[in-house]
Order: sequence, then structure tokens, then C-alpha cells
Amino acid sequence: MTRVVAKFGGTSVGSVERIRHSAGLIAAAVADGETLAVVVSAMSGETDRLLGLAGEFGAALGDEETDVALAAGEQVSAALMALALREHGLQARSFLGWQAPVFTDGPPGAARIAGMDSVAFETAMDAGIVPVLAGYQGVAENGRLRTLGRGGTDLSAAALAAALGARCDIYTDVDGVFTTDPRIEPKAMRIDAISHDEMLELAAQGAKVLQPRSVEFAKARDVRMRVLSSFLDAGASKGTEIVAVGDIAERRIVSGVAYARDQARLALLGASGKSDMARQAFEALASAEVGVDMIVQAQARTPGSVNLEFSVAHRDLDRAQTALEAALPNAQLSSETGLAKVSVVGAGLRQRADVARSLFGVLGESGIVVKVLATSEIKISALIENDAVERAVRALHAAYGLDQG
Amino acid sequence: MTRVVAKFGGTSVGSVERIRHSAGLIAAAVADGETLAVVVSAMSGETDRLLGLAGEFGAALGDEETDVALAAGEQVSAALMALALREHGLQARSFLGWQAPVFTDGPPGAARIAGMDSVAFETAMDAGIVPVLAGYQGVAENGRLRTLGRGGTDLSAAALAAALGARCDIYTDVDGVFTTDPRIEPKAMRIDAISHDEMLELAAQGAKVLQPRSVEFAKARDVRMRVLSSFLDAGASKGTEIVAVGDIAERRIVSGVAYARDQARLALLGASGKSDMARQAFEALASAEVGVDMIVQAQARTPGSVNLEFSVAHRDLDRAQTALEAALPNAQLSSETGLAKVSVVGAGLRQRADVARSLFGVLGESGIVVKVLATSEIKISALIENDAVERAVRALHAAYGLDQG
Repeated sequence: MTRVVAKFGGTSVGSVERIRHSAGLIAAAVADGETLAVVVSAMSGETDRLLGLAGEFGAALGDEETDVALAAGEQVSAALMALALREHGLQARSFLGWQAPVFTDGPPGAARIAGMDSVAFETAMDAGIVPVLAGYQGVAENGRLRTLGRGGTDLSAAALAAALGARCDIYTDVDGVFTTDPRIEPKAMRIDAISHDEMLELAAQGAKVLQPRSVEFAKARDVRMRVLSSFLDAGASKGTEIVAVGDIAERRIVSGVAYARDQARLALLGASGKSDMARQAFEALASAEVGVDMIVQAQARTPGSVNLEFSVAHRDLDRAQTALEAALPNAQLSSETGLAKVSVVGAGLRQRADVARSLFGVLGESGIVVKVLATSEIKISALIENDAVERAVRALHAAYGLDQG
Repeated sequence: MTRVVAKFGGTSVGSVERIRHSAGLIAAAVADGETLAVVVSAMSGETDRLLGLAGEFGAALGDEETDVALAAGEQVSAALMALALREHGLQARSFLGWQAPVFTDGPPGAARIAGMDSVAFETAMDAGIVPVLAGYQGVAENGRLRTLGRGGTDLSAAALAAALGARCDIYTDVDGVFTTDPRIEPKAMRIDAISHDEMLELAAQGAKVLQPRSVEFAKARDVRMRVLSSFLDAGASKGTEIVAVGDIAERRIVSGVAYARDQARLALLGASGKSDMARQAFEALASAEVGVDMIVQAQARTPGSVNLEFSVAHRDLDRAQTALEAALPNAQLSSETGLAKVSVVGAGLRQRADVARSLFGVLGESGIVVKVLATSEIKISALIENDAVERAVRALHAAYGLDQG
């Protein structure tokens, strides 16, 4: 019997009808001989509603009480999914994060899964009961509720799949992972199989289909994941498999093009003798919980100076500037906003140093200026003007042959 | 320092503004030197919304999963109240039923409080932190969530007050207990002090201000309760004290007039030799969870027969008939619907057998036919036509001098 953890996101449980349809997909999988555990998000819009209520009292994500309010969203959808499964003739019961339990550490609003006890799930599944875990939540060492950050239900599902030795099917509102956002490039194509690393880079670069930490977790624990649509009938979704890199038969150089709008560029100019400027800057940014991306360090034109550039999300810009001014009062700090990031991702980039050069060429031909370029083993990202995003995505998608099946 | 458990019902936490106002009342009590623990209901309408969602999947009150969904309502309001208290400069934290923990037994949807561990509350209060308990919920021996039935937050509050040796202030949307429903009789007057037994009868007979089980609990554990309005400014609500019968200085014969619409009358005619008809009938009704009221047994006009009459809520009528037909296939069963119950309640009734007679007179003068009459130590109830309720309430309120201060 194949064990499967099936995760249903907010839109897949967004209404009574959608819950009922998703429950039907589970019933079909059970009829096919699979043994299922289910993980659910809050009904779409509910997390924002609850966050808004907490916000009325001045509480943001990161407050223990905000987590108490937010966790109620998944609590309700877990109960409703268990009831919907019963309508399909299955036995089912809900488990809340603290009931599993899912142990967490780390701060409220962005906790990490420290461990998970899957005995109750094994017992239920062995007895023919479909367990339904409320995703996105766990319990801290102090006995209080914790949430895992946006998209955290993917992480709940990956962790449960690892604990159960199960495959992890992520049901969402699209039929898998695409070569780019179909809303920007209608020729975007579904990817049959992608490696964990490529999926991770796509997710980190803005593809919202899977939460990056869940992919990291799946890679580290060797969990096989699939991304499927819950909006199609049972068996109709072809989806995308996320597998170990060696398991992909046909390798493209580039697997996909991702983008993220509303980025800002920060530049620090300091004395090159002060070689710890970068360390001080990144320590300050980490303390302020600012995620930093696309780091470039170079000798500045001013002799004896060093220039450090990096990008941050626009929403983090004020916090980043305040932290840097406090930590490095003598450095010159400048910033630029209204930027976006486009990235090409592919495991084949490892062997192809010329892709970076050709990316400059492709964007240049479209009249798009690359402000900052950064590369990793399997990704090349360029910082460009916000309003050039759509042109850049379409140009890169065509240039790397992603529209050719 | 006076310890107080302050309970806020659904309308008192029905919106961001109401939560903020209720938090202000708590802050004022703390400023007055009281040490508070708070218990909250779900925001008004939320329990019905969640019950409706569960109902979409065929689940009613009494299902374990329904309880999981319902408990989310109080979870959210407890978190929001803790945040609102912080806005008023207090330290506060929420406790969910399973975190206290509040131990329950009995069925889902109508669980009983089996015990409560108040150590965490004592610790919090001693540290100057206002604990906010999510009402209406606890945890069963099997580790699953349980809810306590409609109005269960009153019971949570009474149990916490008993555990803490605290007074129990029940904040609601009216300024205490009134001699009758002011929507029917504008001359209804607030009662300064009422005994537990009288309050219990008023609540059982339809006055919705307090849940009967919470009053029973308060009486058994000698908890002093007050009913106050959360809609007035701090100190402005005079309220009603519910106290031991000996503590009431000035005793009226009748304290209040209560009513309940949508009652039905059931009559069983059976052989008088079969003396266990009543026992069999009530066992069958108890198994079907039908609450029975106003029981009258009499010799029937048919020789050798006995007539058993009682009232049930209209919503329970079908269930009652099915249970009785199965248990007593040879008895003649008849029913009448469209009825209501009016009751006069007063500790002074114990010594005044003539009140029952005068009640017949008062209703008779208003042209109202009494179908069934039942008395207890401190209550007289009459079953009348539904559409005579308002006239009956006003006539009785005037006849017993309840409008005269």
C-alpha cells in the first residue's frame, strides 16, 4: 500500500464546494489503494481576516496571540475536511498541531518544525481512518501555539510525509509547476519533473506554488513530492514531480523563469581596510530579520573603498536602512526602489557559464537594463525596472526554448 | 485584593470596538485594585457561522468534529481580548481550554466540566498578568476538544471562579436580571439581588441572561455571581447579584416572570395497573435526550386508566414521539403544539400556596386559558397558547407588583 500525504491549500478548501471536491479526490485515491493522511490550510482569505483582526489591536505576525488567532483557521478547515471525508464514506478525524503533536522552535509567526510524533497518524491509518492534520501550526516548548509562516502548511505536509515515509502530494489551484507564470506568458508549459534544487530556486525567486522551506525539507529527508491541481477531476491532473536530480531523464539547461516584483537595491560604500563591513552589515540585517538576496561586492571606483550591493524586498527596505545606519554609521548608504528580479533556473546551468552572458544579451535586445546580476549554481538573477518584468519574462522564456514542449 | 473572574459574552466581544470597550472595563477594575481573570465567548454570530459550516457536511452539535470547528470561535476572541488588554497597558495572555486545562466528560456539544487546573491562572495573576480563558471548551479524556453546550462560557467562568475562590462577574448586553423581559413589558425592573434558586428557575423558564448549569455550579460551589452590562461605562452598570438566599435583605413573594415560546404538550393514556408507564416514558425520553418539563399525572376519566401529561420544547417533539411510540406501543399518545410557558418565580412562593390560585385568576381575567399548570417550591408555570404570551407576561408582572420598585 502506497502511503501518501495529501496537502490541500487555501483555494482547495476555500468553500464548502471546494472542500467537498477535494474530499472526493482523497476518496478516489483511497479507492485506488493508497493510504492517505491529509493536511489542510485555512480556507482562502481566512488567515488574512484573522491577521486583520489581530492588526486592529496593534498585533502583527510574530506575536504569540496572533498565532493563537491564526491557528483557528486551519482548525476549522481540518474539522470540515474530516466531515467531508465522512460524506464520501470514509472514516476520518482531525488532528490539531498540538494534538499530533507537531513540536516547534523559533519565533511566533515563523516557527520551525523541531519534530513530529506520527504515532497517532500511523495508528489511525492502520485502523482505516484518514487523519486530517491542521497545517501551518504546532506547539512550542512553553505549551503555546506557533504558526510556521506563510505557506507553512506545505512544511507541515513535508514533515508528516517524512515521518510516515510517504509521498507528498501538494494539491493547489494549478496543474503543477510551469516554466513561468502563465498569466504573463500564455505559452508557459507544465514541467513533468523537476529537481528539488531547481524547485527551491524557482520558489525562492518568486514562483509561489510551493513554500521553499518545504522543498528544502523534502530534499533533506528524501521525500518525493508532487504538485497537483485540486480543481480537476480525480486522475485528470498530470502535475509536476519533484525528484532527486538523478531521477530526471531529460535535462533542459533552463527549467523555468521566475520573477518577484517590488525589490529594492541597497549599496554600501565603505573603507576597504575595514574588511568586516560585509559581516557587520549582514549581522545587522539578520537581527532585523531582513532577507538579503543578490549580493555583489566589488572594489569601488574611489580608491581604498569597497562597494557592497544587494537586494531586499521593498517592504523590508525601511527596516534594512535603519539597521544598517545603526550598525555602520560611517559607511555611505544609498538605495534604489521600483525594481524587480527575474531569474532563470536550471540544473543544467552548472555546466554552462555562457548562460549568464546570453541573459545580458536577451534582455539587452529587449532594451532592458540589468542593474545587478547574481548567479548561483543553478540560477541567474537580474535586477531590472519593475515595469520591464513582463517583457523580460517573455523574452527569456522564448530565448531558452521553454515554449517548445 | 479581590479576585474576580470577568466573563464577556458574544455581544460583549462582538466587534473590534466592543472588545476594546470590554477591555477598558477590565482595565478599570484592575485600576480599582481587583485581580482579574477573564473568560470570553466567541464573537457574536461566529458560533452559528461555524455550526452552519459543519452542518453543510451533515454534522450537528454532538459530533467531535463540530466541536473542533466551534472551539475556534472562542480561540480567536481570547487572543483578541489578550491583545486588547495590552492596548490598555495591561499584561495579558490567552489560555485555550486544553491549555488550562479544563477537563471535561460527557458527549461532544454538551460536555460537563470534570475539573479545572487553575495553577497557570494563579501563576499568571500573581505575576500581574491577566489570563484570558477561551470559554465554552475543554479537553476530553481521549485528548479531543469538547464544547459545553450553548451558554457554556458562563459555566467556564463559574468553574474558574470556584477554582480561584473568586467572585464571578458575568458581563452581558443588559444591565442585570429584570423582573421580566423588557421587550415585552417596558415596566420591567432590574433586580438588585436574587437567590441562586430563583435565578435558576428564571433561567430554566426562559430568561436567557445566564446559563442554568452555571448557576447550579455557582450555588453548589458557593460562588458569588453578578450580572453586569458591558455596554455601559466603567462603574455605570448596577447589575444584579446572585447570592445565597439568606443574604437577600428584602424578599418579594415573586421575583420575576419568565416565558418560553414554542412548547408542545404530550399526553399518554395507559392502563393504571401498568404502574411503570411513567418510568418507562421518562427513561425513553432521557435516552432520546428530550428535556421534559411540567409533568402532571392524574387518574383518567376512563376507569382503570392513568393520564400522564408533560411539556417538551417544540423542536424535540418528533424525537419525543418516536421514542414514546417505541417504548410504550400500547399507550395512547396525543400531542398539542403552538403553546408557550409562562412562569412566576420567587423564593417567597414557598410559604404562599395561594399564588397558584391567583395565577389562574389573573390569567383568566385576561381571557387566557391555562392548559397545564405545574408548581415547584419557588415557581409556578402555566402552559398557554403561544399568541397569549405577551398579554400573560404583562398581566402577571402587574398583578404581582413587579413594576412598583
